[in-house]
Amino acid sequence: MSAVPPLAPGEVFERLADVIESRLPARGGDPSSSYVARLLAKGPDAFLKKVGEEATEVVMAAKDAEHGVGERGKIVNEVADLWFHCMIALAHFGLRPADVAAELQRREGLSGLEEKALRKALNREGAGE
Amino acid sequence: MSAVPPLAPGEVFERLADVIESRLPARGGDPSSSYVARLLAKGPDAFLKKVGEEATEVVMAAKDAEHGVGERGKIVNEVADLWFHCMIALAHFGLRPADVAAELQRREGLSGLEEKALRKALNREGAGE
Amino acid sequence: MSAVPPLAPGEVFERLADVIESRLPARGGDPSSSYVARLLAKGPDAFLKKVGEEATEVVMAAKDAEHGVGERGKIVNEVADLWFHCMIALAHFGLRPADVAAELQRREGLSGLEEKALRKALNREGAGE
Amino acid sequence: MSAVPPLAPGEVFERLADVIESRLPARGGDPSSSYVARLLAKGPDAFLKKVGEEATEVVMAAKDAEHGVGERGKIVNEVADLWFHCMIALAHFGLRPADVAAELQRREGLSGLEEKALRKALNREGAGE
Repeated sequence: MSAVPPLAPGEVFERLADVIESRLPARGGDPSSSYVARLLAKGPDAFLKKVGEEATEVVMAAKDAEHGVGERGKIVNEVADLWFHCMIALAHFGLRPADVAAELQRREGLSGLEEKALRKALNREGAGE
Repeated sequence: MSAVPPLAPGEVFERLADVIESRLPARGGDPSSSYVARLLAKGPDAFLKKVGEEATEVVMAAKDAEHGVGERGKIVNEVADLWFHCMIALAHFGLRPADVAAELQRREGLSGLEEKALRKALNREGAGE
Repeated sequence: MSAVPPLAPGEVFERLADVIESRLPARGGDPSSSYVARLLAKGPDAFLKKVGEEATEVVMAAKDAEHGVGERGKIVNEVADLWFHCMIALAHFGLRPADVAAELQRREGLSGLEEKALRKALNREGAGE
Repeated sequence: MSAVPPLAPGEVFERLADVIESRLPARGGDPSSSYVARLLAKGPDAFLKKVGEEATEVVMAAKDAEHGVGERGKIVNEVADLWFHCMIALAHFGLRPADVAAELQRREGLSGLEEKALRKALNREGAGE
């Protein structure tokens, strides 16, 4: 696509969050020239609807790949769409991908977390679900 | 929570992807001791269902925040859950968060991308949607 | 399953709505003996989460059928789950399936409705979506 | 809206299913003049995406109502949209709302069904979920 060297994933998320924040109404984002500014100006329902829609598209792309049709690249595209719209939601509420990363790191550090999730899953199955 | 210093967001995603990959059945992931291994062993429907469920929880947490109830931390938790289960789906299909980041970087580099998305949005509205 | 004769579909929805309403906290629904009473007692997030989850299951069952795996009966089961949890949401807000049916009948009666939806869809495609 | 008397809900669903079936490609449905024919001609992803999207809109309308903004009529509209697109999916796979009603009636007739769902829910909570 271009000669731009790939950034580390975290840098990409942080830079993209910067761009999205610059589109906030309070930061002068212009709905007439930016898709992100437009979603942010419309308010939560506009971008939350996209979160639900893009999650469905992730599921459909994955089901196609499971059945050997479609390409894995489609899954990447749909997850990118989903995370992108999540980042718009985060920006609206003054949050950033780094907050999500910190939460994920916190969980990884909690010994026993996976075991607790597992116990719950086992209980559900024991109950015949 | 702990004395562990925060990692850069990108490192968190990459390290978490490593952990998830180590739970793949082909890598010896043990469903009886790991929640992730269990989801991966069950196959796509198990983790895709969680993608849909967690997306709904993001939407509900954001609506609560919009209406001034609940805390923003809930949104972070739900986005973390959603992205985590997306990463499980990515791992199942041999993909990584870095692939998603590369796709997002590629789009950011494409001049005119936001404008194209905007034209589509304007057309939709012109049509009375 | 039983010798009970099939009811007209509309009667099924209305009778099921009666049962669900009898499980409302205000009507004495007992969370310790009824799944529906339990969801209603927990409040909106409990049953709305199920709406998102069951919608995802409809999508997955349909994708399986599209690819020739799974059976169509699975789609029926998942749509039944989805509509059932929608009916719980309706009951919580004092609404009934008959309200949904009336809205659908109203739309069917509106000449030009499909044409309007079509114009919007065509515009979206003209915009390259 | 009109002088048309309201039909029983089941009749509405059945009549709407008839209209949707008349829009199937195999029945000569014309994508250039009908929104439903257009979705059916495009194939499953087109209408399944709408199922995910409309489910999200049901959730958002219900959250607004929960917080005392928006009107209950919005919930009815969104559930109507969701069920309508489910009926399009059913038609594509040769299924009808009556199949969903029969499944719901079958479940209602199964004594102990609610109790089983309840046991599962209690187990989940016992597990700290």
